[in-house]
Amino acid sequence: MKENHLNVELSVTELQKEDMMSRYWSELVKSLDPYVPGEQPRDKKYIKLNTNENPYSPSPKAIDAINKAANEDLRLYPDFSCEELRITIAEYYNLEKEQIFAGNGSDELLAFCFQAFFNPGNPILFPDITYTFYPVYSQIYKIDYRLIPLDDEFKIKVEGFFSENGGIIFPNPNAPTGTCLQLESIIEILNHNKQNVVIVDEAYIDFGGESAVKLINEYPNLLVMQTLSKSRSLAGMRGGFALGHKDLIEALSRIKNSFNSYTVDRLAIAGAVAAIKDESYFQATRMKVINTRERVSSELCNLGFMVSKSKANFLFVRHPLFSGKDIFLELRRKGILVRHFNLPRIEEYLRISIGTDADMNKLLEVIKEIVMG
Amino acid sequence: MKENHLNVELSVTELQKEDMMSRYWSELVKSLDPYVPGEQPRDKKYIKLNTNENPYSPSPKAIDAINKAANEDLRLYPDFSCEELRITIAEYYNLEKEQIFAGNGSDELLAFCFQAFFNPGNPILFPDITYTFYPVYSQIYKIDYRLIPLDDEFKIKVEGFFSENGGIIFPNPNAPTGTCLQLESIIEILNHNKQNVVIVDEAYIDFGGESAVKLINEYPNLLVMQTLSKSRSLAGMRGGFALGHKDLIEALSRIKNSFNSYTVDRLAIAGAVAAIKDESYFQATRMKVINTRERVSSELCNLGFMVSKSKANFLFVRHPLFSGKDIFLELRRKGILVRHFNLPRIEEYLRISIGTDADMNKLLEVIKEIVMG
Repeated sequence: MKENHLNVELSVTELQKEDMMSRYWSELVKSLDPYVPGEQPRDKKYIKLNTNENPYSPSPKAIDAINKAANEDLRLYPDFSCEELRITIAEYYNLEKEQIFAGNGSDELLAFCFQAFFNPGNPILFPDITYTFYPVYSQIYKIDYRLIPLDDEFKIKVEGFFSENGGIIFPNPNAPTGTCLQLESIIEILNHNKQNVVIVDEAYIDFGGESAVKLINEYPNLLVMQTLSKSRSLAGMRGGFALGHKDLIEALSRIKNSFNSYTVDRLAIAGAVAAIKDESYFQATRMKVINTRERVSSELCNLGFMVSKSKANFLFVRHPLFSGKDIFLELRRKGILVRHFNLPRIEEYLRISIGTDADMNKLLEVIKEIVMG
Repeated sequence: MKENHLNVELSVTELQKEDMMSRYWSELVKSLDPYVPGEQPRDKKYIKLNTNENPYSPSPKAIDAINKAANEDLRLYPDFSCEELRITIAEYYNLEKEQIFAGNGSDELLAFCFQAFFNPGNPILFPDITYTFYPVYSQIYKIDYRLIPLDDEFKIKVEGFFSENGGIIFPNPNAPTGTCLQLESIIEILNHNKQNVVIVDEAYIDFGGESAVKLINEYPNLLVMQTLSKSRSLAGMRGGFALGHKDLIEALSRIKNSFNSYTVDRLAIAGAVAAIKDESYFQATRMKVINTRERVSSELCNLGFMVSKSKANFLFVRHPLFSGKDIFLELRRKGILVRHFNLPRIEEYLRISIGTDADMNKLLEVIKEIVMG
């Protein structure tokens, strides 16, 4: 998952938009402002700290499983119910397979959720600073929303989610801030919203947060979203899963089976199963990311940065004397990509994905040059 | 692509449907009758002639390419624009890469098309006997439609598509009939519909039909859909592509980027590129399927079957003395799966995918027992 890059350079004036519109486009297409994924430049080799990819390889067992599955059976359709993968996830979390849904990355699952649980005319709630794909889903599926402001420390204020609404969605840890809600806060939100579905988007949960998965058997309105793209290093294979009451899972299946029966391919299923089963590799790599994050966090503090308390695989930082945009551009010039958002309240911030220790040392070196002169 | 299996056993009464409906479902989910993919039984080994899979392995070069790409780079997101694949397809068809869109199977592309080119309140047209996913897309995206009846020989009547409409979609060859329109007929339809998008769904075109791709530079309202699942034996990897004017392709990109930026994973891209480049393997396997089809077609005629002229990798047949359902069940009992549709006009027919010669000899043997007693 990546946030929209609303750079001035990328924005399109209303006039140009009119020009671009083909007479064959539907009214829906004309109305859209699509999500723009993080840049993936090909012109030269960058240290890529801009899209929250894991710096470590997927589990070697996952790669083995993929190679084993890359055989003549690829002529056959995958299992559209992803049964083996769902059983593996269910065992991992001590749930039933009917409580698990598998899809093509958590973005696909989020899109299904907007169709499955929210209704036009009944506004949903999400934070004002959050994953920038949420407003895009709202637009394509015609779901109204109200933004709930984060507090001055960029934390989610739970009371904001107690008012009447048509559903709730937020990432935990939040993106791009990295701040994390305690489980008690999530329980508070759930208790105030028994009539509506509450979606906790846990793309980054494995880097230090406490998962809401353990609340699923108690709250039939809770849906938890996870992904294999971050903590399991499988962004290139596309795999995400949702966990919740079987009726919520059934709703997601109905949407999927009205769209594309087979969104997860044979090799993605094989790789995902092996990755989830390789617990020791998972623990080792996620701890490496966490340790690097904590070290870089204090070094950036020492360099005068304000650093949000992150439980994700990225840091959200600003310097009181240097503009976010200037640091972003200077890092880019020196071959390091980070993410800068031209958005209200956060235009002075940078989101820096956690890379290897070597990557981060290079980053710190260049940043030192910038801020120490 | 597979057709909906509207078996009596699978149908759900309205009452049961009410019971199943969760209080957390959106109005949209409640309104859906999802597509039901062809059965994939696990209880025993069948000769599987029910889902139009290719009986031959994908190109060994595709499998090699997948194995090479299954490395630590899987930690990185795929190229969301699928540039390498689009360039490969563009070169193959002598088009520009801006005229190509790549997606997760042609089902995903068809879903994008319903959102990108059709508008609620302006009915689109498709044949009364056709791919049963079309009415499902119409339902989820709230697009009205009018069915244009096939003639008594199950051929598409082009005049049916001359009336005012909000868009047109049909498979060529058609499914599940296998009958194919000549290019002149498609040109006639295009000339009568310059205000609307005409989608020619060519999932089965490589088995003997003439592709409409060569008309793309002349007709900005023509979109051609193809897939790697059938003639390139890659159903398990999910890959489909659309070819048309760059403005149509741009509309599909806007829908995709408002839904899920990365629907085609790294290995699917690698496998697809290699499969398209392996022209000699493609020619050899598709000719084997065509030759087997022609042989089985005449043998079934000799056994008293009426066999539609098929240009696809399946045959659509009926016997004047034996019911479609009875033959379907008897074949199933003997370990051979074919497809039977409990739908008006075609309930006496069977759709039989073309397998290997050995598979088909076994089929003919069992059918002979049934009809000769």
